[in-house]
Amino acid sequence: MSIDNAKQLFTTVTDDGKLVLSVEPYDVPEPADHEVVVQMEAVPINPSDLGLLTAPADMNTVRSEEVDGHPALVADIDPSMMRIFAGRKGKKLAAGNEGAGKVVAAGASDAAQALLGKTVTIVGGEMYRTHRVMPAMMCVPLPEGAPAKEGASLFVNPMTAQGFVNTMRAEGHEALVHTAAASNLGQMLAKLCLKENIPLVAIVRSDAQKKILTDIGLPEGHVLDSSKDDFMPKLVDALAETGATLGFDAIGGGKMANYILTAMEQAAAKRGAEFSVYGSTVNKQVYIYGRLDTGDTILGAGYGLYWGVGGWLLTPHLEEVGMERMMEMRMFTVAERNGIFHSDYSSEISLMDMIDPDIAKAYEKKATGEKVLVNPSL
Amino acid sequence: MSIDNAKQLFTTVTDDGKLVLSVEPYDVPEPADHEVVVQMEAVPINPSDLGLLTAPADMNTVRSEEVDGHPALVADIDPSMMRIFAGRKGKKLAAGNEGAGKVVAAGASDAAQALLGKTVTIVGGEMYRTHRVMPAMMCVPLPEGAPAKEGASLFVNPMTAQGFVNTMRAEGHEALVHTAAASNLGQMLAKLCLKENIPLVAIVRSDAQKKILTDIGLPEGHVLDSSKDDFMPKLVDALAETGATLGFDAIGGGKMANYILTAMEQAAAKRGAEFSVYGSTVNKQVYIYGRLDTGDTILGAGYGLYWGVGGWLLTPHLEEVGMERMMEMRMFTVAERNGIFHSDYSSEISLMDMIDPDIAKAYEKKATGEKVLVNPSL
Repeated sequence: MSIDNAKQLFTTVTDDGKLVLSVEPYDVPEPADHEVVVQMEAVPINPSDLGLLTAPADMNTVRSEEVDGHPALVADIDPSMMRIFAGRKGKKLAAGNEGAGKVVAAGASDAAQALLGKTVTIVGGEMYRTHRVMPAMMCVPLPEGAPAKEGASLFVNPMTAQGFVNTMRAEGHEALVHTAAASNLGQMLAKLCLKENIPLVAIVRSDAQKKILTDIGLPEGHVLDSSKDDFMPKLVDALAETGATLGFDAIGGGKMANYILTAMEQAAAKRGAEFSVYGSTVNKQVYIYGRLDTGDTILGAGYGLYWGVGGWLLTPHLEEVGMERMMEMRMFTVAERNGIFHSDYSSEISLMDMIDPDIAKAYEKKATGEKVLVNPSL
Repeated sequence: MSIDNAKQLFTTVTDDGKLVLSVEPYDVPEPADHEVVVQMEAVPINPSDLGLLTAPADMNTVRSEEVDGHPALVADIDPSMMRIFAGRKGKKLAAGNEGAGKVVAAGASDAAQALLGKTVTIVGGEMYRTHRVMPAMMCVPLPEGAPAKEGASLFVNPMTAQGFVNTMRAEGHEALVHTAAASNLGQMLAKLCLKENIPLVAIVRSDAQKKILTDIGLPEGHVLDSSKDDFMPKLVDALAETGATLGFDAIGGGKMANYILTAMEQAAAKRGAEFSVYGSTVNKQVYIYGRLDTGDTILGAGYGLYWGVGGWLLTPHLEEVGMERMMEMRMFTVAERNGIFHSDYSSEISLMDMIDPDIAKAYEKKATGEKVLVNPSL
């Protein structure tokens, strides 16, 4: 359809070992009967977006270049990383998991027409563009008058926080452990657990992060700083008190999962579990859902055979819970958009800002809990 | 009841840091109505028995001593190990998971009386003794005329091999990987998989071990020697060919689980899985069921988030499958006692031999696939 100045961002790993983020014209397709065209006004840059945006690149080498006639950000890729990203070579990929904007055109169906003029929150990739064509049934309208910004981040982190709780209940645990717990996701999880009376042991790495979570209302003794000398005994105490036997770890590499499992086993002993050569019979599980540390995960032999470590990812989780529960979760995120699932943004940038070398270096290295918001309509 | 010369073996971690294996008189209790007295004639020493028997001790220090008036084997425990075995301090524990023998006395119930004179296979610990009192309903009789030796090892390894297949089916996998695959258990698993047409990728550590499994009938290309330079590419090929996405690992420490998951991910790519920043969506699982290497388990970051590693243990597995399936599995072990679940024994020893320093050193260090049989009635 004819929309002036529509633009989209692409991320490409080139054959000669460079990462290119380019902003190019977008020929917005005519929506089908069941579709709408959303003019994007608020798209967050989540840690999970950085995998596509900047993960392959050595960000010390970023510079502005024109590539195939389009303005672009270019950075070198370390040759050792090229093997990992070989599957992306030569493919122009769109990025941006979620966002919000206003429906400016709609197909002929009633469902599509009903959304005209409404501000909607959406998910599905390809959000770093001025316009996104979406099936009407995948758009969740915000209440009348709510700005797009309130709907920008209502999927990835809010659904993940609720997913952790779903998994906890489905697998028979009664309390949670979370690492990198002062993150945007971590703050949402803390508020959700407080509301639902789920004991949460939150692991952070500084006094400032600890304060974020105690300010939210987590008990002092359940927010533990892993950089402190008495971390392990305090972790054992908190696990014994809460009975948490399920952890979600954003770090991945190193020994954090091992510390949690070790402490869970010692906490089980404190709670009266019996001795066996195979460890206590208390089932202990840690899911790795992020890789802040991409090094090896090191697991010791100190907790018998009743344990598991594995990857956890939102998409297969939502397939597992099914459409009905998923819609229930989405409705809850909209209702709690200014409460449990509120996000703060440290700055608001345009699509062109995303390929500015200095701005890109900054959004790639945000502090814990901070996010940048992109307004593609700027 | 009055039985002359009844004896039992105890394993004790003493307060002053020694391991004591003692043979002491056993006052055999009168069987209750529902119980029988089994005169034990064949009790294997499985790797899983060594955890109680010898794991705490420095076996270079074994010597004969008299302890509290009983003949005993004594060995020092390295102080660093005492923390792990602190829960055992001062407790006289019986050992021996499984075995077989003849029913020499029975309680008044019909079920118990029906077993009088029969040779039965049993499980339940405390088998290294001349007589074991058991509930009649837990005894499975061997066919008329079958010697006790044929029923000695019909639980731990046969049920574990069947358990691996249960787990494979329950979790939606279609082929298996097994490490330390030439072990007594490994040979049973190989025969079981051949019978049930389940593709099995078997990982061994020598040409001799490889020959054991190809002689059983595993295809040459599915038996891989991890000590060879081309192990990884061959493992990827075998996994791509079989589609195995579930591994059972007896080693635990080191990088074997990591190699298997890495190769599974590469095999998934070969089989056409799509690229994603979170790895392929093929679910990859490795269960650790033994700890031949008690060092750290090292997991890399090269297979995305669709993976799991965890402990696997027979007891909770059997609780999960339920009594009916478990009895079905036991009947199958008896039927296949000279086929799929046949065990060879490299020697037959007495209860007193178990506390002989030279013999103890020998049974603690059996070669792969070899087992010693104890005949407490000798």
